[in-house]
Amino acid sequence: MTIPPSPHRPDAVERTAAAAAAPTERFAVRTQGMVASEIRALFAVASRPEVVSLAGGMPNLAALPLDTLSAEIGDLVAREGQVALQYGSAQGVPALREQICDVMREEGIEADPNDVVVTVGSQMALDLVTRLFCDPGDVVLAEGPSYVGALGSFAAYQARVVHVAMDSEGLVPELLEEALRTLAGRGITPKFLYTIPNFHNPAGVTLAVSRRRRILELCAEYGVGVVEDNPYGLLGFSGTTYPALRSMDRSVIYLGSFSKTFASGLRVGWALVPPAVRDRLVLAAESATLCPPSFTQMIVSRYLEKHDWRAQVKTFTEQYRERRDAMLAALETHLPDGCTWTVPDGGFYVWVTLPEGVDAKAMLPRAVTARVAYASGTGFYADGLGSRQLRLSYCYPTPERITEGVRRLAAVIEAEMDVRRTFGLPAAPALEVRRGAHTPSPDTA
Amino acid sequence: MTIPPSPHRPDAVERTAAAAAAPTERFAVRTQGMVASEIRALFAVASRPEVVSLAGGMPNLAALPLDTLSAEIGDLVAREGQVALQYGSAQGVPALREQICDVMREEGIEADPNDVVVTVGSQMALDLVTRLFCDPGDVVLAEGPSYVGALGSFAAYQARVVHVAMDSEGLVPELLEEALRTLAGRGITPKFLYTIPNFHNPAGVTLAVSRRRRILELCAEYGVGVVEDNPYGLLGFSGTTYPALRSMDRSVIYLGSFSKTFASGLRVGWALVPPAVRDRLVLAAESATLCPPSFTQMIVSRYLEKHDWRAQVKTFTEQYRERRDAMLAALETHLPDGCTWTVPDGGFYVWVTLPEGVDAKAMLPRAVTARVAYASGTGFYADGLGSRQLRLSYCYPTPERITEGVRRLAAVIEAEMDVRRTFGLPAAPALEVRRGAHTPSPDTA
Repeated sequence: MTIPPSPHRPDAVERTAAAAAAPTERFAVRTQGMVASEIRALFAVASRPEVVSLAGGMPNLAALPLDTLSAEIGDLVAREGQVALQYGSAQGVPALREQICDVMREEGIEADPNDVVVTVGSQMALDLVTRLFCDPGDVVLAEGPSYVGALGSFAAYQARVVHVAMDSEGLVPELLEEALRTLAGRGITPKFLYTIPNFHNPAGVTLAVSRRRRILELCAEYGVGVVEDNPYGLLGFSGTTYPALRSMDRSVIYLGSFSKTFASGLRVGWALVPPAVRDRLVLAAESATLCPPSFTQMIVSRYLEKHDWRAQVKTFTEQYRERRDAMLAALETHLPDGCTWTVPDGGFYVWVTLPEGVDAKAMLPRAVTARVAYASGTGFYADGLGSRQLRLSYCYPTPERITEGVRRLAAVIEAEMDVRRTFGLPAAPALEVRRGAHTPSPDTA
Repeated sequence: MTIPPSPHRPDAVERTAAAAAAPTERFAVRTQGMVASEIRALFAVASRPEVVSLAGGMPNLAALPLDTLSAEIGDLVAREGQVALQYGSAQGVPALREQICDVMREEGIEADPNDVVVTVGSQMALDLVTRLFCDPGDVVLAEGPSYVGALGSFAAYQARVVHVAMDSEGLVPELLEEALRTLAGRGITPKFLYTIPNFHNPAGVTLAVSRRRRILELCAEYGVGVVEDNPYGLLGFSGTTYPALRSMDRSVIYLGSFSKTFASGLRVGWALVPPAVRDRLVLAAESATLCPPSFTQMIVSRYLEKHDWRAQVKTFTEQYRERRDAMLAALETHLPDGCTWTVPDGGFYVWVTLPEGVDAKAMLPRAVTARVAYASGTGFYADGLGSRQLRLSYCYPTPERITEGVRRLAAVIEAEMDVRRTFGLPAAPALEVRRGAHTPSPDTA
């Protein structure tokens, strides 16, 4: 376990130096942790049409009934425009908050609409929860790898991230306990565990139901909060949804989103929080944006009311399953020996481990030249791990494009391995040469 | 000038104490500065229909052509829904950023669309600019009084606010210089001056053009950045727009908004920043919300493209002028001797100073009982000033309601003065008994 050093704080010398800088360059210390994500730098090159992008997490909106939505939204403007185009409350539209409780009930959550705070995507909820809890230097626990946007928010508030490894059944309770014990031994109580239990981004694994209660118990025992981020929970391929951590423990802070089950461009997410947190979260939200857009909230509310949204989620899910199948088949067919990958049962992502000695980040420019893009693994760790790993998304490209993309990727990996062999670089030891979807650990560096 | 003490920072003792608290109550130190604004607490009571609310800053959307907008927005969904409902870039829709440059040209600004960052209302831009620049304890200069949402963001990042007084021509350069000199004498270089030059919220005054260059020179001399917040600039009643500070100095950070010129419920604002700030601001925005809603941005873009938005602004402005006139006439007719107020030449607000001894905050419950609401003055100061002052908004109620509201308010003030006289509380000294719109200073405590 790596515990990063406490963040640098301003001192007198630095302040004097800063005063000599141009006024627009006297940045706060926290900006030192703000770096462009590798994924972001990649989007520009990967967005050329000839490149098969397996990098982004854009949902496939082709399945949306745009004509119906067009009529509905037009009607909303005509009938309720005076409200929809006006400022609203910082906590969000009351009718929508009630409907959000219905959505969460699918995963066993019983909640009061008064404890729901609507945000501009769940990213905003994550950012504000970090704002509420994290002083500079505070420790946050997160799966390794973890969502890149969460790592960005933690860095923005100068929190230190300690990763806990997963296996094919998600976060490993024994490793969580070890981390908690080690930290406690150093007098550190992490502010919270940030976890994506279902169809993990980027790891593609799901936290076994049998582990969920144990993880909650451990956090309670060590006085650590739990932030459950669940944008993909309803997108399971086997037709089952898993009980949310929040359904087992009302102190869990739960983050949800309509970005993957309806439309990401509306940016409607939410947090369900204990009453002790709620008022502060509303105040923080008010400081961040005054209020979320009334219009997009009312669109989601009307959509939930007038459409069979569960059927729409099923349509999305069937498409994603077909694409997942295409990706797994292509990986099995094309990837060379020494590559392993996870097998997601929902969501958007497969996490691939490359043969020893192959660096996913260094390989990326050559992959883009070969017209395929992915997200390299180091971006999903706060501590430099993940160099042999990469995330592949199957959510947006068609099955045919996915197959072609994986074929191109396999050729790039083969070429990397060839270079290593030619120059006599150490190959992976024989015992570690394994292949395929049966190797679970997504956190092997 | 008051310089608040540096914010409280966590120390070992406090951390130990915090570790004993429930996990969901171990808040960051910065939350100590988060308090519900007086205005917010007021919205709940003041929203009853029998109450004439002169408290809120909601634009009057009745002037919008909802039927046309309904058709346009429906068409946007049908034709471009795949893009409008999808994730976009963190910096904002490129076409809109170009149009925003056209809008800013109205105030003499020449800008590159690459330096524009679209945000969820200009509140988000303000919050993120504070995030980029302010370490805990940093000093920010702001007019006294200042926008309550700005004070909230400054508090959220533990910045200290030093107010500089205005007169009827806005921020007083001599007082700004005095503040800068005093702070420099204590080794403090404020991070920036936050200013609302046009139709100030809440003071209702406008910074004289003759003062603008001097203020920029002073800030440059002392190495202090300038953040120009300009949501009301196009809503001037005399038909002139003022040259933006940014038009005179490219290092100024400029914040703009469509909330007052089009529709607040879309939450589309922006920041125009120097290139050195831009990349960091985009990163901060990404951490805050990933990206602003594509849909609302595309609605604004289409609106600017297809409608005569300048004519619409003129329509809005004529309505606001009529309401301003109604309010000023009612104040002149009904308010008792000893009350003074500012005369806005645009925007939404009149700033009223009550007779000595009358406390606006203490009077508020009695005003609401008398079915009129306002925003009491202390909420617009970070340092407890403003107890004799209040903000009246004329943007939302009809002229008839405004007149009735001011009549009720005048009766409440009279009753307060009666109580003071009855109980022999000290009256204002004779020399200070003045009345009407000719007394400029909005900052008299």
